[in-house]
Amino acid sequence: MNPMEWQPDRASQEPLHRQIEHYLKQKMTTGEWAPGMRIPAQRQLADMFRVNRSTIVTAVDELIAQGLLEGNAGGGTRVVSTVWDSLAAKPMLNWHDYIEAGTQQPNSQIVQIINHAEFQPGIIRLGTGELSPELLPVQRMQDVLAKLSTRAMTLGYEEAKGSMWLREALSNRMAGLGVEAPSSSILVVSGALQALQLISIGLLEPGSSVIVEAPSYLNSLHLFQTAGVQLNGLGMDEEGVIVQDLAHRRQTSRDSIMYTIPSFHNPTGIVMSEGRRDELIALSERERLPIIEDDVYRDLWLDEPPPLPLKARDAAGNVLYIGSFSKSVSPGLRIGWITGPKTVIDRLADIKMQTDYGSSSFSQAIAAEWLTSSHYDDHMAELRAALRERRAHMLGLLEQHLTGLAEWRKPSGGFYVWLRLNDGISATRLFQDALRQGILLNPGSIYDRTMGAFLRLSYAYASHQELSDGIVQLARLIQTQVRA
Amino acid sequence: MNPMEWQPDRASQEPLHRQIEHYLKQKMTTGEWAPGMRIPAQRQLADMFRVNRSTIVTAVDELIAQGLLEGNAGGGTRVVSTVWDSLAAKPMLNWHDYIEAGTQQPNSQIVQIINHAEFQPGIIRLGTGELSPELLPVQRMQDVLAKLSTRAMTLGYEEAKGSMWLREALSNRMAGLGVEAPSSSILVVSGALQALQLISIGLLEPGSSVIVEAPSYLNSLHLFQTAGVQLNGLGMDEEGVIVQDLAHRRQTSRDSIMYTIPSFHNPTGIVMSEGRRDELIALSERERLPIIEDDVYRDLWLDEPPPLPLKARDAAGNVLYIGSFSKSVSPGLRIGWITGPKTVIDRLADIKMQTDYGSSSFSQAIAAEWLTSSHYDDHMAELRAALRERRAHMLGLLEQHLTGLAEWRKPSGGFYVWLRLNDGISATRLFQDALRQGILLNPGSIYDRTMGAFLRLSYAYASHQELSDGIVQLARLIQTQVRA
Ligand SMILES: Cc1ncc(COP(=O)(O)O)c(C=O)c1O
Ligand SMILES: Cc1ncc(COP(=O)(O)O)c(C=O)c1O
Repeated sequence: MNPMEWQPDRASQEPLHRQIEHYLKQKMTTGEWAPGMRIPAQRQLADMFRVNRSTIVTAVDELIAQGLLEGNAGGGTRVVSTVWDSLAAKPMLNWHDYIEAGTQQPNSQIVQIINHAEFQPGIIRLGTGELSPELLPVQRMQDVLAKLSTRAMTLGYEEAKGSMWLREALSNRMAGLGVEAPSSSILVVSGALQALQLISIGLLEPGSSVIVEAPSYLNSLHLFQTAGVQLNGLGMDEEGVIVQDLAHRRQTSRDSIMYTIPSFHNPTGIVMSEGRRDELIALSERERLPIIEDDVYRDLWLDEPPPLPLKARDAAGNVLYIGSFSKSVSPGLRIGWITGPKTVIDRLADIKMQTDYGSSSFSQAIAAEWLTSSHYDDHMAELRAALRERRAHMLGLLEQHLTGLAEWRKPSGGFYVWLRLNDGISATRLFQDALRQGILLNPGSIYDRTMGAFLRLSYAYASHQELSDGIVQLARLIQTQVRA
Repeated sequence: MNPMEWQPDRASQEPLHRQIEHYLKQKMTTGEWAPGMRIPAQRQLADMFRVNRSTIVTAVDELIAQGLLEGNAGGGTRVVSTVWDSLAAKPMLNWHDYIEAGTQQPNSQIVQIINHAEFQPGIIRLGTGELSPELLPVQRMQDVLAKLSTRAMTLGYEEAKGSMWLREALSNRMAGLGVEAPSSSILVVSGALQALQLISIGLLEPGSSVIVEAPSYLNSLHLFQTAGVQLNGLGMDEEGVIVQDLAHRRQTSRDSIMYTIPSFHNPTGIVMSEGRRDELIALSERERLPIIEDDVYRDLWLDEPPPLPLKARDAAGNVLYIGSFSKSVSPGLRIGWITGPKTVIDRLADIKMQTDYGSSSFSQAIAAEWLTSSHYDDHMAELRAALRERRAHMLGLLEQHLTGLAEWRKPSGGFYVWLRLNDGISATRLFQDALRQGILLNPGSIYDRTMGAFLRLSYAYASHQELSDGIVQLARLIQTQVRA
């Protein structure tokens, strides 16, 4: 670099460190500074531009933050080897803001650690909310594919709301739950998460607020927040969300919608009682509060079926009901559905068409074949039996190893045990200690920032042996904290 | 209704018609006025509330506009029978704005008519950009499903970027096109449209602008506009977009990204020449202008393969390349892909995970099986032969019936013939006249508002006989206009 070439303009409005930052960036853009190259020492740069060393530090730190430079152990600074990538991404400033908005959320760092750790081989996942590979119906799925291979399928674009075959099958299912949902008011979506996404971008106004159970499903919270919607948490007891508290609050604030998981709630496992359901619907009608009912765990009852959905009690058309195949049959299918007032469904279908032009017609045919054959019901019976065993195993382990250290309820379905650690035990420390030993936990704080004393355990994912080993280890780590 | 019950508050800040509007709405909310019920005459309401008749008219008109009341032929006003639906949708104001934003686009009414007419039985679709059902590989697809049914598939959530099997197959394909795309820089999407959607929400800043070819693909234009991005149209000649014009314009304006369909462009069918491609890439590097290359028609060459993609010439990592199975194998599969700098792909993958948690693993397995078996190449050879015949048929018909009335070029691939009507012929009138006779046209104005003299014809969708009948009819309708 020829020091005579360029000097910062001391008369400019632009701070010196900014000018230098831009100049250095230009060196990389033009390729004069190649990827991987070591740049001149900071002292040298300060001399060249006749500025304080701290000005150089500011400029270089900014470029490091932008991912264009990297410091190394020897104290030198290099152009990162992927600098072209980073530069190419540069004009796309909005995405940077977006990323940052994302990371402003509480605990998102823990979530990132969890998402990453899930792919580490050998890790014991004590909190994962998915069916274990051994519980997924591989053989039945092969049968379904074989069956479909004998049928001439339509390969073209599907109707906007999804295949009629599947929607009629879903309409029948819903009728069995006391919900009158004609196929015209059902929209097939690529998983329940997409339904929440469509609602977020289509029906919620940025700056409005959503009432959520505290705690609640992580990804939905994230979606709502990304849509610029404020979250208002509402407490729960063993009958579900405390509707009374909502009634009081409604007199002062105007929330736009409520999001609830009434059956086998994620992460607490709680089932909303009959009475509470009626209460909530009455409030919804009185106060004209629309409700999103996320019922993806419904069919995973282990003792007895949960009360009928809120939607079955909803004469006024205030409830949007969401279901999914992810928790019962196959997450990879990416098939869920949403039903509600036809006008709302029409609008959501419209946005869906604009975003992805409908869900895979193959996944839809597979789902329809599952529902209209005996596969779905037969599989659910088997799955329930397997989950009952897993639940018993988990509860036995907890009883044996965690009595006196934590409290929990027996869940009557779903995947989760919501564990309250005794006072004085730090869940954050536990999370870190466990991770170091190859055990991945889901701390309560990611579901609600005030739930630091909880852990979400799942009996659906880890194997029998992993559950045993994992819980024993967990108990030891807690003991260590208690004794210290 | 008891007139003593309620009176508007004349001391209130709120206008009388607003107060009355809210009161009437309440009657419907509470169910006092049932769906379908006839409401009191306007004179009567004016008397009851002791206001001018015009105040009532304003209130009632507002409720009609909101879809809650409807006038009938006899002059009476009724509660609409779907009032519950409309009321339930009411708090969701943002979506209303959204819908309205959508309809502000030029010609969207014609697009709506087209979308609707496509489902009318017996209609001849002369412009539809899809493979005819008879061209879709139903038998091969059955073979692929049968093959998959013998394989133990993973039914769980896929990796964020898509199944490794498919990404590796795509990486191989891309290598054959001179594009080095490791699987880590490929994101599987639910159709090319979703790639554009992810870019719109993830990389484009509202208020920024996108350079597009004029004319261009309808749905992408819509997506960009919905994202609040301005469109800057750039003219085309027989070698593709006129890069020179862009170079001039760039000196004054700063556009954030360019969207181009270089091979068998939709709707013009134009293939960007080798020279033009190099020119565009040089400009992109010089001006640091990122490019979205939508290459979904590439494999549909009929005479010879098109020049290598822009992406193959892109040393600087400025190009995002998009492909799809929709135009070649099956739109219902909803599988496309996007490749580009890994950092950008990582970000798009992140947004995709937040919106739908990945594409159907079944669709992905099907696509991978297509690519890694001989099916894809064998099918493409057959498809090209069929499309060549269809193209010859279409061009023969045009020659015979439209010579002297319109001009067109012979397309060398893709689906489309871009027809320029002679001066004095109104495409809008033609569209309407044709629709009345059961023929659906795609007028040029929906692809660019200045392209009113054009029609997009497609030889991919209508049957041999429909094409014959349709073109003969079209010629007659044009003759009628010419003679008048
Ligand atoms: C309450 C709840 N809703 C929705 C989902 C997502 O389901 P899908 O895979 O159908 O998008 C989950 C998955 O964890 C969940 O717990
Ligand atoms: C240029 C272009 N890009 C993308 C698409 C949409 O493709 P997909 O079905 O993969 O979303 C189309 C379909 O008409 C198109 O013409």
